[in-house]
Amino acid sequence: MTEAATARRSRITPEREAELYGAVLDLLREVGYDALTMDAVAARTRSSKATLYRQWGGKPELVAKAIRHNKPGSIDDVDTGTLRGDLQALTSREDDCTMQQNAALMRGLFMAVHANPDLLQAFKELLIEPEMAEFHRVVQRAVDRGEVRADCPALDYVVHMLVGAFATRTLIDDRPPTQEFLSSYIDAVVLPALGAPVG
Amino acid sequence: MTEAATARRSRITPEREAELYGAVLDLLREVGYDALTMDAVAARTRSSKATLYRQWGGKPELVAKAIRHNKPGSIDDVDTGTLRGDLQALTSREDDCTMQQNAALMRGLFMAVHANPDLLQAFKELLIEPEMAEFHRVVQRAVDRGEVRADCPALDYVVHMLVGAFATRTLIDDRPPTQEFLSSYIDAVVLPALGAPVG
Repeated sequence: MTEAATARRSRITPEREAELYGAVLDLLREVGYDALTMDAVAARTRSSKATLYRQWGGKPELVAKAIRHNKPGSIDDVDTGTLRGDLQALTSREDDCTMQQNAALMRGLFMAVHANPDLLQAFKELLIEPEMAEFHRVVQRAVDRGEVRADCPALDYVVHMLVGAFATRTLIDDRPPTQEFLSSYIDAVVLPALGAPVG
Repeated sequence: MTEAATARRSRITPEREAELYGAVLDLLREVGYDALTMDAVAARTRSSKATLYRQWGGKPELVAKAIRHNKPGSIDDVDTGTLRGDLQALTSREDDCTMQQNAALMRGLFMAVHANPDLLQAFKELLIEPEMAEFHRVVQRAVDRGEVRADCPALDYVVHMLVGAFATRTLIDDRPPTQEFLSSYIDAVVLPALGAPVG
């Protein structure tokens, strides 16, 4: 951030900033990126549009900041001793409500991120990478333990399997993703594809 | 369709209607549903907005009709004798260009379909069900042949595996889905999850 930007940003309290970012994420879930207007953000947060533009420059910057701000902190390492135990523990850490909020946010951003590299980066940082780094760690430990063969071709597709099921659940079944769904999918698809024990 | 609607629609030639629907799908791929305006459709197709509204009633109706119009006809049954052969044949029938067009269309509609049941229906009819009915048929034949156990839990998730990988490829790897990707994913994930022979 430039010094000028820091000076501009310092006028707003951290609490107010968090509140504003929360409202932006709510709007993203409700209407999606393309339909989200600075007018709506101003109305929802009782700010003036002039303030929003002065502080953030524009919609892409504001949305990217809001996503980054909401990025979860470092998560405790999960280590149950089996791949199944680890994957089930990772997916049950997020309650169904959070999971559905993230699914709605993913839908709201799915088109826009392909046209906006900065948004794509923020989106990956929030919704894809933190969880996926953790999934890669538990899978690597399963390889180290000999539960999964190091040359198993499905190792390249752990993220596709999990994010794909999460992202398409509502579309295919008219039901949002839940812990129960992901748990069943891990046992039915992810572990067998990796050749790891299910039971 | 009501008689009045049929009378209104009959003023436009089938060629002109197809051209117009093609332009709507192009715009959907380019900007997505929310950012698609009737002004843009009018400009792209050299129609008047008044004509568009008179003929279709509004944006959701026009988009749903355009998607339905483009719905592929019945596809020849694939039957190679093995599940692997059938799945590979099904995915190689669509060339990479068509696949990328469908991925773009899916992105353009992903948010909107959740807010609009008629669009969701049209979207499923075009992009999900025709292919998936075919996938279910080849998988059922594999069960009948004894290649896949009838109680294999992954049978419930064939669509999630395939559509999920297709829909998330660009997001995860910054590359569009291709025949080569789907072919590799089928061997690495789908067949092992179903317990079917890969080689």
